Amino acid sequence: MGGGFGGLYAAKQLARLNVQVTLLDRRNYHLFQPLLYQVATGALSPANIAAPLRGILRHKQNVQVLLAEVTGFDVGNRRVLYDGGELSYDTLIVAAGMVDAYFGHQEWETLAPGLKNIEDATRIRARILSAFEAAERLADPQEIQKWLTFVIVGGGTTGVELAGALAEIARYTLRGNFHNIDPSQARIYLVEGADRVLPPYPPELSAQALRSLTQMGVSVLTGTLVQDIQPGAVVVKQADQTRTFETYTVLWAAGVSGSPLAKALAEATAAQVDRSGRVIVQPDLTVPGHPDVFVIGDLAHFNHQTRKPLPGVAQVAMQQGRYVAREVDARLKGKTLPPFHYQDRGTMATIGRASAVADLGRIKLHGYLGWLAWLFIHLIYLIEFENRQLVVLQWAWNYFTRNRAARLITAKRHAFLFPTPRKAAEGAPRTAGVCYVFTPKYEHLYPARGEVCPQ
Amino acid sequence: MGGGFGGLYAAKQLARLNVQVTLLDRRNYHLFQPLLYQVATGALSPANIAAPLRGILRHKQNVQVLLAEVTGFDVGNRRVLYDGGELSYDTLIVAAGMVDAYFGHQEWETLAPGLKNIEDATRIRARILSAFEAAERLADPQEIQKWLTFVIVGGGTTGVELAGALAEIARYTLRGNFHNIDPSQARIYLVEGADRVLPPYPPELSAQALRSLTQMGVSVLTGTLVQDIQPGAVVVKQADQTRTFETYTVLWAAGVSGSPLAKALAEATAAQVDRSGRVIVQPDLTVPGHPDVFVIGDLAHFNHQTRKPLPGVAQVAMQQGRYVAREVDARLKGKTLPPFHYQDRGTMATIGRASAVADLGRIKLHGYLGWLAWLFIHLIYLIEFENRQLVVLQWAWNYFTRNRAARLITAKRHAFLFPTPRKAAEGAPRTAGVCYVFTPKYEHLYPARGEVCPQ
Repeated sequence: MGGGFGGLYAAKQLARLNVQVTLLDRRNYHLFQPLLYQVATGALSPANIAAPLRGILRHKQNVQVLLAEVTGFDVGNRRVLYDGGELSYDTLIVAAGMVDAYFGHQEWETLAPGLKNIEDATRIRARILSAFEAAERLADPQEIQKWLTFVIVGGGTTGVELAGALAEIARYTLRGNFHNIDPSQARIYLVEGADRVLPPYPPELSAQALRSLTQMGVSVLTGTLVQDIQPGAVVVKQADQTRTFETYTVLWAAGVSGSPLAKALAEATAAQVDRSGRVIVQPDLTVPGHPDVFVIGDLAHFNHQTRKPLPGVAQVAMQQGRYVAREVDARLKGKTLPPFHYQDRGTMATIGRASAVADLGRIKLHGYLGWLAWLFIHLIYLIEFENRQLVVLQWAWNYFTRNRAARLITAKRHAFLFPTPRKAAEGAPRTAGVCYVFTPKYEHLYPARGEVCPQ
Repeated sequence: MGGGFGGLYAAKQLARLNVQVTLLDRRNYHLFQPLLYQVATGALSPANIAAPLRGILRHKQNVQVLLAEVTGFDVGNRRVLYDGGELSYDTLIVAAGMVDAYFGHQEWETLAPGLKNIEDATRIRARILSAFEAAERLADPQEIQKWLTFVIVGGGTTGVELAGALAEIARYTLRGNFHNIDPSQARIYLVEGADRVLPPYPPELSAQALRSLTQMGVSVLTGTLVQDIQPGAVVVKQADQTRTFETYTVLWAAGVSGSPLAKALAEATAAQVDRSGRVIVQPDLTVPGHPDVFVIGDLAHFNHQTRKPLPGVAQVAMQQGRYVAREVDARLKGKTLPPFHYQDRGTMATIGRASAVADLGRIKLHGYLGWLAWLFIHLIYLIEFENRQLVVLQWAWNYFTRNRAARLITAKRHAFLFPTPRKAAEGAPRTAGVCYVFTPKYEHLYPARGEVCPQ
């Protein structure tokens, strides 16, 4: 279950065997998550990076897709519980992925949205574009600067790519689009707790990424932790100094934790869950004592190869998906496979236009070469997408025109972006759940400060 | 004000004059509304048919775009009021367009969504796709048929195009995608009050459209009025017979009325508003007694050329936009123009794949030829869109593969599609505003029946 890289690759491989496969997902599409930041920054449309699961699997007669939300596990009776019933299994593969984690500060979620799914991406896109629109409407220089200040929390791949794309938007895409403001005056801060960006990469590539970001006008703050996010401001701490950034736009790329299903599975199987909410798996990716239950992809904590668990990247998930399928095949033949072994094919990140860093094991690339490698490898894996050619063309177009045609502010009416002006009653209780907050001044434009309004 | 066809064309023409232009719109993009049904049916992405206003107008130094919601008019002091302030004008052009009208049955709005903007389109897309997903999950044949029954209310251009596209989806696009249901068993009803579909067209083209729709498996019910829409059912009346269709998916393409701004303008200027909420304009498109206030596009009721008001189509809006700009130019030179005269370049509608009807005045086309004409003319007018080439390629791809890659079910969490199961408290008051209703059985999947839940 799970239509991400792990689940999808497992399903595709299992389809070749004489088994019945059911793929459960609450979404009807497979999302090419590594490119999600391109949707958030208006370069691609959601449909460019999302492909309907039924379309991908339509020629696999023995694979059934079920649009359903898994709610729990009954491993004793070998059943998966979902929102509309239950399903029996012989072998269960859990590939439910991760959700954003706010380190115990769940109240930051509305103030600093993360980037995990398409709705997140279009919401971030709306917030970025709305910030420029709000600045254009104002006269007060201080307020304008607050709208033109962007803070990205987290200097991993997503954070670095978002910061680069934002710099690109501010300096090139929106050039000449406004009359009262100069978008290139936008300040973009990238805040990272470790002492360098892209901590999992070799230090020389981190240094390259830092150079590229700085050249593009991004202010990178390493060794810096976020202390507080308030409506209109972020407080960070570097060494012993605290510093406050006045901003209406904070984007979260700092941490993820396992899907809540990890806990449900752990309770059902007595498996262990790590601090990040991932299920600790055996060398063959199963849960201890349950050889018929596999956990793969980002949700699996696999520490049998190196001391650190494997990173949460598509490559790991795909290889694990394929491994499980081969293991099932082996078991059907009365055999068993050697433990899972991850083959690291490298990691990479783009920084703005035509620049990237790539760590391909022995080969380390940066700048234009790194970008070509990034392009090539992403094209290979976009192979799931029937209209990959269109993505290439869209990229080519964007590349030459520096344009981002998908810069649409779409939002449900009454949604956060243009909330209906309304005030919470005096003394209204602050609810513990998700709340939208409004400024007295910009309540028509943005949730930022002032009244708390229960959703 | 207004970034539709009328407002945009007026702004672009005015940009050539020695005047300052401000374009006010609450959206940051111009929407190519005639193709909205293609987004609703997963053939195109929103960004394919929406172009950022600032991008289109960035080389016009004297055109300022303001993202704002107009709230009223102070014609005495020549000011437009918007949600963040007010704006003085010498000449005001109102091009605020239409909203869906439910003939006094506003409660039908959530049950039968209309198709006026991008959010509507992605919502309808989600509802259509979810209906097939729901059917796939069920065992009860009667319930399956209820999910596989689609009723489209209104046999105008939008209704006919939606019905054709739905038939295409059911018969071809989703073929082989499901295991438990056969999507081609879907029943698609098109309900029209007049005695033929496409009432504004010549009768022979209506007959052609009817033939094409019937061939594709659409059941067309003319002379049929909707009496009631309930969760899970539509009641229609044909002659003296009433008939109930059991369905979870009703789409509204039956009527529009003027933006609420028409009333605000009428109150401010003592202009008259017709039954459809449109402002009745003078031969020069101004409001009586206010030569500096123009109303153009769908919002204008112009009846000086034929007895009937001009239709609410893009052509009329574009020509009126250009006319107003020329009139402003003439006035600056101390002259005045003859009354506005609409040059009908024809109307057309596509019916599924490679079939259309086109009424180009003396030339009437249908079938493949009609479709080629439709394609050609839409391509010309998509010229606003920088990535028109990509739309063409997407169409070519769709045409040959019969695929619709953009069949994504996207929705905000807690939005109507997968509402969190929750029950309204016993005896909770039914609020007058927009409500989501849940079935006891499918509350995870669809708003349909049962509890009423204030948004």
